[in-house]
Amino acid sequence: MEFDTIAAISTPMGEGAIAIVRLSGDEAIAIADKIFKSPNNKSLLEVPTHTIHYGHIVDPKSKEVAEEVMISVMKGPRTFTREDVVEINCHGGLVSVNRVLQLVLNGGARLAEPGEFTKRAFLNGRIDLSQAEAVMDLIRAKTDRAMNVALGQMEGRLSKLIATLRQEILETVAHIEVNIDYPEYDDVEEMTHRILVEKATYIKGELERLLQTSQQGKILREGLSTVIIGRPNVGKSSLLNSLVQENKAIVTDIPGTTRDVIEEYVNVRGVPLRLVDTAGIRETEDIVERIGVERSREVLKKADLILLVLNSAEEFTEEDKQLFAATSGMDVIVIANKTDLPQKIDLDEVRDFASNRTIVTTSLLEEKGIDDLEQAIADMFFQGQIEAGDMTYVSNSRHIALLHQALQAIEDVLNGIDFGTPIDIIQIDLTRTWELLGEIIGDTVEESLINQLFSQFCLGK
Amino acid sequence: MEFDTIAAISTPMGEGAIAIVRLSGDEAIAIADKIFKSPNNKSLLEVPTHTIHYGHIVDPKSKEVAEEVMISVMKGPRTFTREDVVEINCHGGLVSVNRVLQLVLNGGARLAEPGEFTKRAFLNGRIDLSQAEAVMDLIRAKTDRAMNVALGQMEGRLSKLIATLRQEILETVAHIEVNIDYPEYDDVEEMTHRILVEKATYIKGELERLLQTSQQGKILREGLSTVIIGRPNVGKSSLLNSLVQENKAIVTDIPGTTRDVIEEYVNVRGVPLRLVDTAGIRETEDIVERIGVERSREVLKKADLILLVLNSAEEFTEEDKQLFAATSGMDVIVIANKTDLPQKIDLDEVRDFASNRTIVTTSLLEEKGIDDLEQAIADMFFQGQIEAGDMTYVSNSRHIALLHQALQAIEDVLNGIDFGTPIDIIQIDLTRTWELLGEIIGDTVEESLINQLFSQFCLGK
Repeated sequence: MEFDTIAAISTPMGEGAIAIVRLSGDEAIAIADKIFKSPNNKSLLEVPTHTIHYGHIVDPKSKEVAEEVMISVMKGPRTFTREDVVEINCHGGLVSVNRVLQLVLNGGARLAEPGEFTKRAFLNGRIDLSQAEAVMDLIRAKTDRAMNVALGQMEGRLSKLIATLRQEILETVAHIEVNIDYPEYDDVEEMTHRILVEKATYIKGELERLLQTSQQGKILREGLSTVIIGRPNVGKSSLLNSLVQENKAIVTDIPGTTRDVIEEYVNVRGVPLRLVDTAGIRETEDIVERIGVERSREVLKKADLILLVLNSAEEFTEEDKQLFAATSGMDVIVIANKTDLPQKIDLDEVRDFASNRTIVTTSLLEEKGIDDLEQAIADMFFQGQIEAGDMTYVSNSRHIALLHQALQAIEDVLNGIDFGTPIDIIQIDLTRTWELLGEIIGDTVEESLINQLFSQFCLGK
Repeated sequence: MEFDTIAAISTPMGEGAIAIVRLSGDEAIAIADKIFKSPNNKSLLEVPTHTIHYGHIVDPKSKEVAEEVMISVMKGPRTFTREDVVEINCHGGLVSVNRVLQLVLNGGARLAEPGEFTKRAFLNGRIDLSQAEAVMDLIRAKTDRAMNVALGQMEGRLSKLIATLRQEILETVAHIEVNIDYPEYDDVEEMTHRILVEKATYIKGELERLLQTSQQGKILREGLSTVIIGRPNVGKSSLLNSLVQENKAIVTDIPGTTRDVIEEYVNVRGVPLRLVDTAGIRETEDIVERIGVERSREVLKKADLILLVLNSAEEFTEEDKQLFAATSGMDVIVIANKTDLPQKIDLDEVRDFASNRTIVTTSLLEEKGIDDLEQAIADMFFQGQIEAGDMTYVSNSRHIALLHQALQAIEDVLNGIDFGTPIDIIQIDLTRTWELLGEIIGDTVEESLINQLFSQFCLGK
């Protein structure tokens, strides 16, 4: 395919040691050459591919030096986009990198849309859609395990599995068509049905197996939205600090994200927790008050995990019970804190209230019980273990939705056979399964969807 | 010099398209090679310098793939540090880039201290100290002009000027010594004095000329700390928004900076304004109340520029007058806002109170008078014009302090001659001038100072 030449700043905004302006397209090298001056007047048009060149970016009009740079020249197809790619490696200043970008745009490049570099890698056939999506997952990964899931997907593990299933379906469809067109034998119908049932059952099983990984996959990818609640002074801040300190905080502050609800990520035994409203916890201990307000209910409703903290050195109060009521039906771990003080709480009463919920006793002050809590969190979502890195997880909501639809379609096939539906009707459901799986890897997907998917990428990728 | 091999993440922390782990030192290529696997099993130890290589980072122990990367191999001395440099160009995820860094450190590299790459460029003689400092200024530059100042300094413009002055001093000292050692002629003393006065006067003039640029240089480098004050509802928020919208905001949010006092940078005709406590203005209109409190006084005291907003549709009040009193002796621009409404304020009375302060009338609602305000700001600090980019500005506080000391020393020389101080005493002052100027370029500077200077750099630079 032929595209125009795009450019963008590909490093995060902020003060750093290095900032990169990336170009991709037929004119990438020529545009960079126009504003590049090397000490020995070398032309970038004549350098070998995959080489690096020192020099200055000079405004061709004013002759003013804009930056001291290293330029990487990479000619397609051995590049990220399969097109000619130039990376201009600047000192990390915001002003200077912006000026370099401006000169590149003046020189004829177009400002890339978010994700447009990866989109080109997809459109130019270097990667399929699920691999492209994995690129973004890789960037956003909050833990090692999430990264492994993304890496596996980027290397095409999911793509290969999907491709195998689609091939099976295609062969079955072909088989049916041959039998329909050439009904040479009397037992054609029976044979066709037999093969169909066999194949459809196999595909259904594979889809179910994939979907089984999706809950864990989604948690690894997106993190568990976690809320800490409890009466004032039960130790919510201590719990928060303990979780953040014990477990390397993964992400601090990403420019461009909202500041309204402040979140912190921590990595508990490979489970990424997204601690919601930590600012609220740090600023005030009056979270019980706020339970009443609409916004707090919303936060609770969206939470994947609730850590309900009790003070075991005090009686089990009405307020505590209200918190249990407010979180009924949710995934809750109960933490009876302050075991370092004389115990007053009736844990049996708490157990009655908690029904099947896990109760952990801690002394956050003395740093006791934190291991138990972490194990409880891991147990709750991964039955105590997280699968090894070489497993193919489905983690992307779009993929999960498509797999569910494909599963429904293949069940329609099986039901159709049971009900004696004519084979050409059944074939429609079978073809639909094939198409739905194709959407995952971008084979049968519409342009508007592709545009929408890539627009969620970050700029410069 | 011989150093160990250092490594750091050289791109800003945050989600981006590209993240770079940079290595520098003798073992840089060997360490990278240990964890790099290219599709054709190429060894990085055998590739030509300044070339780029596609492959994967693989944990040598677990054999797990950690990232898909492009590796740039640059052999010294044609590198940033003059040592062997390797840049590992990763997909921009925080987790993956951290894992790559970890593997590099496991492989034998040491985590670089802030500024250590630039420090090596200095210690290995590629750049002098003032050039190294300019690297950091370039990264932190808030406007084009600030960047030009930094670029000029990085290219060694200040260094050359300083070197020329030091050469002059050295020659003079040599001349004196020759005359002292060989007093062949009767008029030796007179001749020596004549030359001394001539040279010292010339050097004094040059130092004064340089120092004259320092006020503007410092403003360009650090920005003008600007505070907006005024009674409630005079239009402070509108002024803030108008300044931020009209003038491209320069810096939004840099991770790691404090959030207590929120600042915004705007670029007014090349003058970078650092708008202080903008959160306060946006959150509340009760800034007058807060003038009374200690903290507000502190903010006012530290401000380089105060924008005092009045409501011209109301009488000139006691509160307004208190604001004038609170800012006496400071650089204030008075803004009489709301010219769109029927005017009630007595501008002559305001003028009496304002004495020599510039008064601008605006209707922020109708977007009138903003040009006048911007011109007033530019006039106040740059007498209406900012020098062209090819001027050598002194912008760094350390340099300014040293220039002041050098000026004092050269004045001591001149006074000494006047007072008939013996020539060998005068020579001490002359040598001190030479040493002080040497500190600017790092020629006569102590190691502890060097360490302290580079520790202010960002990580990975």
